[in-house]
Amino acid sequence: MAAEPGRASSWEPPPDWQEGPRVSGPYTFMRIPPGRHLKAGDVAIIGVPFDAGTTYRPGARFGPRALRTASAHLRPYPRQESGLFPPFDRLHILDYGDVDVIPYDLSETMTRIEQALTPLCEAGVFPLILGGDHSITLPVLRALAAKHGSLALVHFDAHPDYWEPPLGRLHYHGSTFRFAAREGLIDLDRSVQVGIRGTLSSAVVAQAEADGFHVITGDAFAKLGVEETLGRIQARARGLAYVSLDIDCVDPAFAPGTGTPEVAGLTSREIVALVRGLGDLSLAGFDLVEVAPEYDPAEITAILGANLVYEFLCTLAHSRRDALYNQGAET
Amino acid sequence: MAAEPGRASSWEPPPDWQEGPRVSGPYTFMRIPPGRHLKAGDVAIIGVPFDAGTTYRPGARFGPRALRTASAHLRPYPRQESGLFPPFDRLHILDYGDVDVIPYDLSETMTRIEQALTPLCEAGVFPLILGGDHSITLPVLRALAAKHGSLALVHFDAHPDYWEPPLGRLHYHGSTFRFAAREGLIDLDRSVQVGIRGTLSSAVVAQAEADGFHVITGDAFAKLGVEETLGRIQARARGLAYVSLDIDCVDPAFAPGTGTPEVAGLTSREIVALVRGLGDLSLAGFDLVEVAPEYDPAEITAILGANLVYEFLCTLAHSRRDALYNQGAET
Amino acid sequence: MAAEPGRASSWEPPPDWQEGPRVSGPYTFMRIPPGRHLKAGDVAIIGVPFDAGTTYRPGARFGPRALRTASAHLRPYPRQESGLFPPFDRLHILDYGDVDVIPYDLSETMTRIEQALTPLCEAGVFPLILGGDHSITLPVLRALAAKHGSLALVHFDAHPDYWEPPLGRLHYHGSTFRFAAREGLIDLDRSVQVGIRGTLSSAVVAQAEADGFHVITGDAFAKLGVEETLGRIQARARGLAYVSLDIDCVDPAFAPGTGTPEVAGLTSREIVALVRGLGDLSLAGFDLVEVAPEYDPAEITAILGANLVYEFLCTLAHSRRDALYNQGAET
Amino acid sequence: MAAEPGRASSWEPPPDWQEGPRVSGPYTFMRIPPGRHLKAGDVAIIGVPFDAGTTYRPGARFGPRALRTASAHLRPYPRQESGLFPPFDRLHILDYGDVDVIPYDLSETMTRIEQALTPLCEAGVFPLILGGDHSITLPVLRALAAKHGSLALVHFDAHPDYWEPPLGRLHYHGSTFRFAAREGLIDLDRSVQVGIRGTLSSAVVAQAEADGFHVITGDAFAKLGVEETLGRIQARARGLAYVSLDIDCVDPAFAPGTGTPEVAGLTSREIVALVRGLGDLSLAGFDLVEVAPEYDPAEITAILGANLVYEFLCTLAHSRRDALYNQGAET
Amino acid sequence: MAAEPGRASSWEPPPDWQEGPRVSGPYTFMRIPPGRHLKAGDVAIIGVPFDAGTTYRPGARFGPRALRTASAHLRPYPRQESGLFPPFDRLHILDYGDVDVIPYDLSETMTRIEQALTPLCEAGVFPLILGGDHSITLPVLRALAAKHGSLALVHFDAHPDYWEPPLGRLHYHGSTFRFAAREGLIDLDRSVQVGIRGTLSSAVVAQAEADGFHVITGDAFAKLGVEETLGRIQARARGLAYVSLDIDCVDPAFAPGTGTPEVAGLTSREIVALVRGLGDLSLAGFDLVEVAPEYDPAEITAILGANLVYEFLCTLAHSRRDALYNQGAET
Amino acid sequence: MAAEPGRASSWEPPPDWQEGPRVSGPYTFMRIPPGRHLKAGDVAIIGVPFDAGTTYRPGARFGPRALRTASAHLRPYPRQESGLFPPFDRLHILDYGDVDVIPYDLSETMTRIEQALTPLCEAGVFPLILGGDHSITLPVLRALAAKHGSLALVHFDAHPDYWEPPLGRLHYHGSTFRFAAREGLIDLDRSVQVGIRGTLSSAVVAQAEADGFHVITGDAFAKLGVEETLGRIQARARGLAYVSLDIDCVDPAFAPGTGTPEVAGLTSREIVALVRGLGDLSLAGFDLVEVAPEYDPAEITAILGANLVYEFLCTLAHSRRDALYNQGAET
Repeated sequence: MAAEPGRASSWEPPPDWQEGPRVSGPYTFMRIPPGRHLKAGDVAIIGVPFDAGTTYRPGARFGPRALRTASAHLRPYPRQESGLFPPFDRLHILDYGDVDVIPYDLSETMTRIEQALTPLCEAGVFPLILGGDHSITLPVLRALAAKHGSLALVHFDAHPDYWEPPLGRLHYHGSTFRFAAREGLIDLDRSVQVGIRGTLSSAVVAQAEADGFHVITGDAFAKLGVEETLGRIQARARGLAYVSLDIDCVDPAFAPGTGTPEVAGLTSREIVALVRGLGDLSLAGFDLVEVAPEYDPAEITAILGANLVYEFLCTLAHSRRDALYNQGAET
Repeated sequence: MAAEPGRASSWEPPPDWQEGPRVSGPYTFMRIPPGRHLKAGDVAIIGVPFDAGTTYRPGARFGPRALRTASAHLRPYPRQESGLFPPFDRLHILDYGDVDVIPYDLSETMTRIEQALTPLCEAGVFPLILGGDHSITLPVLRALAAKHGSLALVHFDAHPDYWEPPLGRLHYHGSTFRFAAREGLIDLDRSVQVGIRGTLSSAVVAQAEADGFHVITGDAFAKLGVEETLGRIQARARGLAYVSLDIDCVDPAFAPGTGTPEVAGLTSREIVALVRGLGDLSLAGFDLVEVAPEYDPAEITAILGANLVYEFLCTLAHSRRDALYNQGAET
Repeated sequence: MAAEPGRASSWEPPPDWQEGPRVSGPYTFMRIPPGRHLKAGDVAIIGVPFDAGTTYRPGARFGPRALRTASAHLRPYPRQESGLFPPFDRLHILDYGDVDVIPYDLSETMTRIEQALTPLCEAGVFPLILGGDHSITLPVLRALAAKHGSLALVHFDAHPDYWEPPLGRLHYHGSTFRFAAREGLIDLDRSVQVGIRGTLSSAVVAQAEADGFHVITGDAFAKLGVEETLGRIQARARGLAYVSLDIDCVDPAFAPGTGTPEVAGLTSREIVALVRGLGDLSLAGFDLVEVAPEYDPAEITAILGANLVYEFLCTLAHSRRDALYNQGAET
Repeated sequence: MAAEPGRASSWEPPPDWQEGPRVSGPYTFMRIPPGRHLKAGDVAIIGVPFDAGTTYRPGARFGPRALRTASAHLRPYPRQESGLFPPFDRLHILDYGDVDVIPYDLSETMTRIEQALTPLCEAGVFPLILGGDHSITLPVLRALAAKHGSLALVHFDAHPDYWEPPLGRLHYHGSTFRFAAREGLIDLDRSVQVGIRGTLSSAVVAQAEADGFHVITGDAFAKLGVEETLGRIQARARGLAYVSLDIDCVDPAFAPGTGTPEVAGLTSREIVALVRGLGDLSLAGFDLVEVAPEYDPAEITAILGANLVYEFLCTLAHSRRDALYNQGAET
Repeated sequence: MAAEPGRASSWEPPPDWQEGPRVSGPYTFMRIPPGRHLKAGDVAIIGVPFDAGTTYRPGARFGPRALRTASAHLRPYPRQESGLFPPFDRLHILDYGDVDVIPYDLSETMTRIEQALTPLCEAGVFPLILGGDHSITLPVLRALAAKHGSLALVHFDAHPDYWEPPLGRLHYHGSTFRFAAREGLIDLDRSVQVGIRGTLSSAVVAQAEADGFHVITGDAFAKLGVEETLGRIQARARGLAYVSLDIDCVDPAFAPGTGTPEVAGLTSREIVALVRGLGDLSLAGFDLVEVAPEYDPAEITAILGANLVYEFLCTLAHSRRDALYNQGAET
Repeated sequence: MAAEPGRASSWEPPPDWQEGPRVSGPYTFMRIPPGRHLKAGDVAIIGVPFDAGTTYRPGARFGPRALRTASAHLRPYPRQESGLFPPFDRLHILDYGDVDVIPYDLSETMTRIEQALTPLCEAGVFPLILGGDHSITLPVLRALAAKHGSLALVHFDAHPDYWEPPLGRLHYHGSTFRFAAREGLIDLDRSVQVGIRGTLSSAVVAQAEADGFHVITGDAFAKLGVEETLGRIQARARGLAYVSLDIDCVDPAFAPGTGTPEVAGLTSREIVALVRGLGDLSLAGFDLVEVAPEYDPAEITAILGANLVYEFLCTLAHSRRDALYNQGAET
């Protein structure tokens, strides 16, 4: 694809790893040069290093750093086996840096996230968020819905995050989608949760289902398999869809570095195949949350997370293949 | 279920995590209040922090502490996906504390464990043991068999633990079931082992089978699958059954924190489904052993172990459903 | 000392480690039985598992658990070399358990801490707090000052914790003593800070000194030495004194497990000697904060912290030697 | 099998673990006595503690030490479930020690490895190599091919290692099989790669396939399964075959301790079954490379690696069953 | 200091931590914006992520990343206790990024480092190098000496790094100063080594001293103390001086994360005081090498290293105080 | 020194690290070739991988492995700064391998240790023991005293190890010297303990002193200093002396990897100087015990331990300087 006039200095693909070795270079996602000059259709990778919404093991504030660090290991090619498009040929992707959170002020940080995202969403930039705990998804959805209206939600997680704030008055990482539904940011009839499991009260899941959510528990997923689950996702997530991926949807063997791990989760093969299968959706935004590197001594959680972000970028390039071909024809 | 007169002060369910947050509270199993006032039908969670019966990596002496710590993450509900009964509604469960072991005196500790368990078993209390290494199961079986006679055994493990003490004269963690069979504590014709694998001499497995044990190796399990294996367990384990779960039945990816890990083991999905499937047995006792937290840097072994204990409690509540309904009707 | 009538069941000394081995027993501080029945003069060990006031590495929410766990290693004797009194002979000490914090709600948790402490302080109980990050000291001081009026402060720390909340509107772990001074909870003219160092703006230290604080920086301490520093503390801390010990006053080699470590700190010998030298003060309360066990792989920070708590208990017994002798004479 | 005259002192089976406990003894592979007196048909276990050919996480220089250490846990019996021959009854196996590498001199070390291997290969000794990074396989193949001519290759790996040296002029751990093919050390038409995946440029895999390699990607393997994959291997690997096993063919959950982990890899069950299924090949040499113990906090990667080496030894004994029976008949 | 015309966009001080919280922002040293537009007198912080010159524990290739990450914890003020100048008020400091090393090609990387440094040195930029192993200092000295001629050397290290390459033909991390002296890059009569200790052959130290080096061993330093050692350094290091600080000069308790730790080393107080005392030298360049984060589980080595870099920046600002005042007067 | 006839094959010095790089070679102590052919005056390095005498954190069973592994980093020269003799020029030193312990049988293992040591002691071999927990010193003393009669003891430790077995009937790691004194293996009037500290009952220290032991507590040592302490040791330890060094005499910052760490201990400089100062004693045996590598993530405890063993070897060579000169003159 030809470079656009006047954009050359504001973005560039990651260095060819055969020239810029992976142990050196900027510590951005996949060593993309950082930048904040964005326009419609661009992808902004945005860190939100915040974890004060956590109820058990903290540390996801260092998730953006861990994901960027682990991403240095990735090479800028589509996965050989995926048949997908090389993302950097087709998407303008920049590492936007981080939102300036206040580590100890949950309410103010929610406001700051929404304020940081709003102009990007208004400009038609695609937000790709590196969390941070799951509380941060709420202000992202607020900014997106202000632009696009109510979104479909594809939610990979061990937990429904559909509780009323249990211990106090504030929104926290377990109430994100309760608030989002109540505020009309997501349309539960177009939404699906995959991987829900663990010692949950039946009330919270029953409430989610009563409100319209389609819940595929971890056990149900194990029986359905990847293909059937993808079929259900595609049937549900009509219109513009937001994808929220809590790394604890995966089993602790594959993703120990997270705050509230739940056993008997997805395998790495399964989650890779699920993300890779979202290419026919109309995608509006993405986040990968709850990577807590202090519980990740061999860095395997961050490596999996970085791969899932990259797999999503390939999927996004695929989802825009028509637009891109047209654009390519024009330039 | 209505509270029984005079029992109110001696037990109570774990705190609702929405009120007593999981990072605070007593460090008992699931933050149940500790207590030692027990009667027939109650469940006593008992730690045995002893590992001097170990032959390779030590550290299971800190297993009870690790399991209790990890259990703080559990919420007091039945697993959504299991269809089981909420255990704390139906069972009187107390954290009994630990047996006072002597860390360096194997023989004396075996005696102390048996002495501590005997009055509980005589009183009809259900012992749920948190090990410790596998040597501690022998005195538990001695105390139970003194009450109930020879028991069926359901044994999940990578190792048959059916060796003659190889290096000396003392019982150790590899000879538990050899001694138990010889002493008549278990009835091998009603017993089954699941997950046996690794570099074992054929002699020890052949001996176990010749003596009547039904051995399902790791490879055999992989071919049989969960349902068929559960069928075999139910066919064998007639009468009162003891369940002994060595965490090394699971693959080291899912349970690195143990003393003698063996590759190519069960997955977390498989072991959860196996424990969940024991509800039609007549259950007499349970132990979960060989969690060694020093080899568990992200705590995933202890989290899996705590979940398996909890899954067993739900299963136990299910196994007593008739008695409980009757009891419920009476009160 | 003779047991008091009617108190026998509410407290007892920790188990003799020769009878109750240190790997077993309750996970309270030094395995003291837990309890909440307290009266004037008793010491309550209270955990505050909260770290949402942290600005850098989180994890101090697991500090109370780590300190209690590490305390199992202590034996209930005065240190041989200290010449101090055995604390359990002379003090009624109970492990009160934890304050029920809300992990993600800083303001509400501050309120809950103050509410939990107020009746204890009113009753004349001595609060010995296991943090938690340093934000939790403010509500403790509020509860104490409501009873006793403005207190002298002896503050061991790498940081002055005297900032205006820099990033938002809430009190956080760096503003504790700014708020405490402003609210009149501490009297800066009777207060001293020891160990302050690192990349601090001169403004914050200058402000502290201008307001009356006596600041002994890490460099100044290295020149003064332990004895001269103790002399200055005793000269300043007239009247009832509160001692607040942030573990990061110690060098990261001795205390790696903390959130904002600063190099060139105190050694373990120095901090032990400093705590041991406080016995002539009139002591009103104590906290040990900022132990973050996820950064403490060999548990040495928690072991040092638990020893300092114990050393303080011996010191406290010493400080009450006259009252205790009198009390002993009476019973 | 009867001892051969004059060989008694030069080798012996590993100690019976019931007599020589696994925590003591020499730190050789499975505690086989070390030795360098070898003849045709013997197996030499040779460490190559070198990792300067690595491009990302280093540390495989300590791989031989980690594999030998972990092997102490193995017992000298065939796996119960494999039906294979006990290797030490049938093979002369010695721990040869290490090649004297130069940690910082890649070129000179390649020469030293070839020089060390050449006399062994000429003498008909079977080289079983413990790496080290994958660069070390090239000089091993040079020494073997000088004796046997071009070999078939069975290659388990996440990466094709078929790049032109990307960043400079030297052979490195990603170019091993490009050089080996070009030098005629391996015959690509008789070679197969299993497990290839990750963010690879299509160019490198396309080149490998164009040159004759049969590439079974990770995704393709997941669909084919173990049996079909083994069928393809056997169909391809005619004549003398070399087996090269890079531990990163396995998923990071099962093998975190490696330099360039790739998600969505093989499970431990799968790789064990694959190695076990090679017994009908005509085997010429074996290596297990890229174990980096600094990223292996619970030692599970080294334990898996040591088991795979042992599984290969059992397989090798099986592959020589006819020769051995004949030999056994003669002696 | 007034901004220079046309420079505003090319550099700026690190964010005020009260506005840009330390958990967010660019992952440069102290979150200084990255940049490569430099002129005479500017300071360029340059990473050299290379460790193939190491002979024992590798991993220093991740040293620049670890030092930059740890530096996020620093605040942009002079140390309260140092009396030094705030560096960012007085020095133009940019994070230049990394030299593009070739991880497995020692010779080519040495060339690349020299080529990268040469234009900077020619332009009068002050190089502040983040290693990497100690081999990288040689090409830095080559670039500097080409501009300035032979330099004085102030060398803090446990090892003299004055060996002939022992195991091969290449320069490695133990021969840096042997080569540097032989090539005339440093003038040994104006050079001093501090902290040398461990199991060294007397030959290598004797040779260093015979050639003119002033060697202050670890034992000698312990007797001399900081002040006397600084006096000797100042007496020796006349003219332009290069400071090379190998983190292993410090004791492993304070700096475990390094490749060849030696016991009985300097404390953190001592090394901080030594660096702080160099302000009267005429400084030409600085490096901090041999931080290996895989051996630094609590990050204390990287934190100490980042503090020493910062302490050096304050010292450098002090050393240029006259020039700066003049410059300040002009603008 | 000329080689003795017929001994050439039975021992040799460690490889010159410039030829045999430290990452390769046998995993013996300092890579000395293993061997068991010993005669009077030789030094046998003997591992005792046993920890079932431990009361708190286990793991010292892997101490011999950790010490040998860490010793690979040592170079075979006397410390530059010590002025001592190069040990391998003057002493015949062999790595004898391990005593075959029974991991779970304390009594039988004590017997086996004594049986293994007795012929060595009778032959006049100098035993240098790598523990293992401190229980193993008792059988070593039994074997030595059978040859030499009652010995002087120089004991570096945080604990007096002078308890009656507190929790049962067996000798354990806290009763070694109580038993040794009672059995007449050591003569307390010629014995001294250095570093004793922590929460000890006054009874145990008072008993040790009453029985004749000279106890220098940690606090007393801090005041005396190295030189005065060495003076006291030399004054006490007349006649043949045994040196027992428990690594927990050192502060946990310098030696975290041990079972019962006690804060405020010796620094690495102090313990190195103490061991180096023993050269004028008449030395009969040495052990270094209680290194537990699972609590030693950066290997610094094992590195310190290996250095202390080596420092002792240099000291031993010095202590035999007259004999050696004579012997040298003869050959």
